[in-house]
Amino acid sequence: MDTLLYLTPAFGAVALLFALNRARFVGRQDAGNERMVEIAAAIREGAMAFLRREYSVLAVFAVVVAVLLYVANLGGGTELVGLSFLIGALCSAVAGWFGMRVATAANVRTANAARDSIAPALRVAFAGGSVMGMSVVGLGILGLSGLFLLYTRVLLVGGDLQGQILQVLSGFSLGASSIALFARVGGGIYTKAADVGADLVGKVEAGIPEDDPRNPAVIADNVGDNVGDVCGMGADLFESYVGAIIGGMVLGVAYAQSLEADPLRYVMLPMVLAAFGIAASILGTFLVRTREGANPQTALNMGTLGAAVLMLGIAWPVIGMLAPEAQGALYGCLVAGLVVGAAIGLITEYYTSDARKPAQAVADASNTGSATNIIAGLALGMRSTAFPLLLIAGAIALGYELAGLYGIALAGLGMLATVGIQLAVDAYGPIADNAGGIAEMSELPPEVRQRTDKLDAVGNTTAAIGKGFAIGSAALAAMALMSAFQQQAGVGALGLSLGNPVVLSGLLIGGMVPFLFSSIAMQAVGEAAFDMIKEVRRQFQEIPGLLEGAPGAKADNARCVDIATAAALKRMVAPGLMAVLIPVIAGFLDKNFLAGLLAGALVSGVLLAIFMANAGGAWDNAKKYIEGGQHGGKGSEAHKAAVVGDTVGDPFKDTAGPAINILIKLMSVVALVIAPLIR
Amino acid sequence: MDTLLYLTPAFGAVALLFALNRARFVGRQDAGNERMVEIAAAIREGAMAFLRREYSVLAVFAVVVAVLLYVANLGGGTELVGLSFLIGALCSAVAGWFGMRVATAANVRTANAARDSIAPALRVAFAGGSVMGMSVVGLGILGLSGLFLLYTRVLLVGGDLQGQILQVLSGFSLGASSIALFARVGGGIYTKAADVGADLVGKVEAGIPEDDPRNPAVIADNVGDNVGDVCGMGADLFESYVGAIIGGMVLGVAYAQSLEADPLRYVMLPMVLAAFGIAASILGTFLVRTREGANPQTALNMGTLGAAVLMLGIAWPVIGMLAPEAQGALYGCLVAGLVVGAAIGLITEYYTSDARKPAQAVADASNTGSATNIIAGLALGMRSTAFPLLLIAGAIALGYELAGLYGIALAGLGMLATVGIQLAVDAYGPIADNAGGIAEMSELPPEVRQRTDKLDAVGNTTAAIGKGFAIGSAALAAMALMSAFQQQAGVGALGLSLGNPVVLSGLLIGGMVPFLFSSIAMQAVGEAAFDMIKEVRRQFQEIPGLLEGAPGAKADNARCVDIATAAALKRMVAPGLMAVLIPVIAGFLDKNFLAGLLAGALVSGVLLAIFMANAGGAWDNAKKYIEGGQHGGKGSEAHKAAVVGDTVGDPFKDTAGPAINILIKLMSVVALVIAPLIR
Repeated sequence: MDTLLYLTPAFGAVALLFALNRARFVGRQDAGNERMVEIAAAIREGAMAFLRREYSVLAVFAVVVAVLLYVANLGGGTELVGLSFLIGALCSAVAGWFGMRVATAANVRTANAARDSIAPALRVAFAGGSVMGMSVVGLGILGLSGLFLLYTRVLLVGGDLQGQILQVLSGFSLGASSIALFARVGGGIYTKAADVGADLVGKVEAGIPEDDPRNPAVIADNVGDNVGDVCGMGADLFESYVGAIIGGMVLGVAYAQSLEADPLRYVMLPMVLAAFGIAASILGTFLVRTREGANPQTALNMGTLGAAVLMLGIAWPVIGMLAPEAQGALYGCLVAGLVVGAAIGLITEYYTSDARKPAQAVADASNTGSATNIIAGLALGMRSTAFPLLLIAGAIALGYELAGLYGIALAGLGMLATVGIQLAVDAYGPIADNAGGIAEMSELPPEVRQRTDKLDAVGNTTAAIGKGFAIGSAALAAMALMSAFQQQAGVGALGLSLGNPVVLSGLLIGGMVPFLFSSIAMQAVGEAAFDMIKEVRRQFQEIPGLLEGAPGAKADNARCVDIATAAALKRMVAPGLMAVLIPVIAGFLDKNFLAGLLAGALVSGVLLAIFMANAGGAWDNAKKYIEGGQHGGKGSEAHKAAVVGDTVGDPFKDTAGPAINILIKLMSVVALVIAPLIR
Repeated sequence: MDTLLYLTPAFGAVALLFALNRARFVGRQDAGNERMVEIAAAIREGAMAFLRREYSVLAVFAVVVAVLLYVANLGGGTELVGLSFLIGALCSAVAGWFGMRVATAANVRTANAARDSIAPALRVAFAGGSVMGMSVVGLGILGLSGLFLLYTRVLLVGGDLQGQILQVLSGFSLGASSIALFARVGGGIYTKAADVGADLVGKVEAGIPEDDPRNPAVIADNVGDNVGDVCGMGADLFESYVGAIIGGMVLGVAYAQSLEADPLRYVMLPMVLAAFGIAASILGTFLVRTREGANPQTALNMGTLGAAVLMLGIAWPVIGMLAPEAQGALYGCLVAGLVVGAAIGLITEYYTSDARKPAQAVADASNTGSATNIIAGLALGMRSTAFPLLLIAGAIALGYELAGLYGIALAGLGMLATVGIQLAVDAYGPIADNAGGIAEMSELPPEVRQRTDKLDAVGNTTAAIGKGFAIGSAALAAMALMSAFQQQAGVGALGLSLGNPVVLSGLLIGGMVPFLFSSIAMQAVGEAAFDMIKEVRRQFQEIPGLLEGAPGAKADNARCVDIATAAALKRMVAPGLMAVLIPVIAGFLDKNFLAGLLAGALVSGVLLAIFMANAGGAWDNAKKYIEGGQHGGKGSEAHKAAVVGDTVGDPFKDTAGPAINILIKLMSVVALVIAPLIR
């Protein structure tokens, strides 16, 4: 037991060392010619500048919240929740910063490696992604288990495990979730504003190709890929990972008591399983074969699949060691989570892939114009919620049947145990994408771009599976955190009854929150994009010779980067604060009302998230399907209609949709943290 | 008491006599010239043919369900629920049939009256609408109170009031709701398929004006206005009305017991209030001044407002007579319902009117293309859920505070007490719309069309308020029916706890149902529209001289009517059956699961219904705003973008959105009816 308690942070440290090693590997690669270095520097500067400004805003927020938490808990024995919160926020920020720093080094080196062949490019891009993946899990486990050790062995010795130590620890999750929401929303607004600005004025109005250096928004667009897809996603998964672990830890006490077992063992189990998941992820990265001639798709599949199988092998003895009283049941929950997560991923892939009927039907609908394309996409997105919701409900029912609320938390953890390698694959995509942009802008031969495009494409299926895990685990983790809140706030079963109109009012208002949140996020994208459009138009008009590509005419990239940064930061505040404040207000009104509100937000949030993600994905791939030569190909009327759908889908799938996943957990964790205050 | 029991059906009979009188008035008017009579006959034939075919399908369904209900309840003392079901279905069908018959006579007479001036046209159109309104409330009260009289005085004398008589009576509501759902979905598919077919091929591809007789789909389009907007809406409000009354009746027993009062009085109160609401509605119609020179808008407002004030005046002594123990509290609930309903209506109007900022912002977004128009509309729809949900939650909380679950039901009833005149105004709109179509097709002078357009437009604000009542009352009635189910099925507060994962699984799956349902409905519209498009294109190609307007060339209208009918009937089955079967399956799995499922469907259903209705309304009016000369007016790029939004909005606001209102109540009433079987 004690050994495990001290060993767990060590796993986190190992992950960080491995990340450092991968970062060094990336750094050792050649960054290519002068033009490439120059462009890459512009992207990195833009991304880092955004992060600096974002973090300065968030630092103020974090300090204020930490002080508030400290003061509000004064005298209750849970004052340290403020400290946990700060550390959680810090770990999330550091993981994002480190991951993005390396990603913005790996992009240009991937492009340079792709000048030779595909295998070395894959190696660099995947190493870059691995840094993000390992930073997230490493800092997650190190921070969490380090704090747990600190509280149980130094600061709160002899304190009540559930009421004090775990309650204090839950602040870590709140820190992670708040940063994640701001990062996701801010990054999402940034990337889509730049994307729309670059596309609408550059491609459509001026008729110049994608990633053309004449386009002033093109650097901002590439910066956006990093701040949105790399850093935003990293913060997102950091939050999921930590939330799933903490939800399980809190629920472990009651479950252990029901078995008359030692609670500490059950509290430690989620953390220890996650730690062994890190080991499985690291080993998995070695299965990603990057030898010449290997199929990149198989390579990535081998890695993620191998890690999952390894995890299943390790989990059995680990559970047996810590929870022998319920080894079979808990293992079953873990497996159920893994299977359900993978199944949701496959369903996601089915509904969004351009090789499958649903997205092709959206492409077909483009033949009769953009209205039918939009209707088909919306209908697809709504329909695609059916099976995932059945699966999630099934996982909840099964997990509960096997091991009560704790079982639900473990099923959620099952989906996230190997997040280290999943995130590596996810982050690899935007690196390859960025590499393609750099290749284009520095006018490398077209085969380089073809190679990076191929790398980008193979990541897509794996990324779809990853999305399934993200959505499924969000639902289960939110459910676990919500249950943890119910326990900590002492909300009885009677107070939670659907027959209680206070609960039902909460349910209705809670259901409305994700709708309102999505609306605000989508509007923010629209407004930020409009700022960008105006700027790009201005530059084309005012900089002589720019559009014609005259030798002396240079686009003012930095100004576009500035505008996107300012727009994103300004507009991330309202939705972020809303998510934090609503549960606080509701909780101080009535704790049963808050319980209903969380359940309502969970239901409509999961539905909207799946709806938006899949509609957006299908529109995107329907466009690609047409660009592949169907229905008249690029430039046809059907293509124009499909571009409309793709543009509508962008804020759906890249801003509002993924942010809702965080929103529902953030609201639950806010409730959990304030539980002692409204008890 | 006894007097009231016998008097209540008399109110229903009076409403029917009044409807007959109005129908005679319409019949006495001149139908105009030969061409007008011919066109009107084609529309009426098409509408009646659709209804005949729809009712033959539904008759089979109704008989099968009635037999199943009878058999399933054999030996339980509740076999007569099958009879109630049949009568409920029959009353709904008769109201729809009668209302539409008169509406299809009033349209051409309105057009003819409009050749003189606006006042007589208003008189005819409003008389036509009144027939629908009065048929619905008349048959609703007559059927319901007649059955109640039959059961309490003849068939089930001495039977247990709640467990037997009211349980049996609930079949009436199920009959009404099932017919309503099929009628709304079938009518919704019909009207939008014909509309899109006529617009896309006629207006856009062939470039001929709206309602041009050369367009083969133009008769089907006008038929669609009748089967969708008149008949579908009538069945919809019949269902709301009956559901709100029955929900209140079932909950009255427990409330009376809590006051130690006579349950029968509290059970009768909702029915008696509704009966007096009929009187208020009839008196209200006399306030609709149709003298020359009067502003039609003021006239309609006077009618609805007058009826509401009258109702508030009558309700106080009625409540005092039947429920003196809680006169103030119950009156408060009724007033709260009225206020909340009106407020939701005003919010609806704010978000959708072309004279207000939100819809104008959607019009502005059309300047940058259809993608931004769509995003703006979707964001508006999502945002517009916020205040209505707060208001509904407030009404639930206040109603419960004042008079428990019974108070919630009375608040819902408060929104529907004067539905007789509200529906008259609602149904008046499509009659005026149809009159305009007939004027166009029979080539009457343009000022006739201008007059009917003006009549149509003034109905819009009143109709928006009506929509607010429909949405608000749907939420409260569903809530009341759900609570009635919980009582009848004996689901305890513990079993309903949100801490129970079975309930939560139900919540998640229930939340998914409206998404799946909307998707199926939207797809059905798309497919049916595609059938129409193909047929219209075929006729333009194959009938020589048709497009050029050659004297001998005649469009085959009947074939388009046939195709729309067949398409709508075929595609209404799946969503309709789904709504009936899901609660049955869920209930036999686990009654707590079903309870959760109903709550989930309520939450996401109300949200989706508001989202879709308001997004659709805003797109529609954004287009009209541009057509009024803004952003370049008709034919501009902004207008083209706005047309895309309007087309996307059609299945939102006219098919899926309103059908969801019925869906959530139908699911609850199915649960209520099967409650004794799963107790």
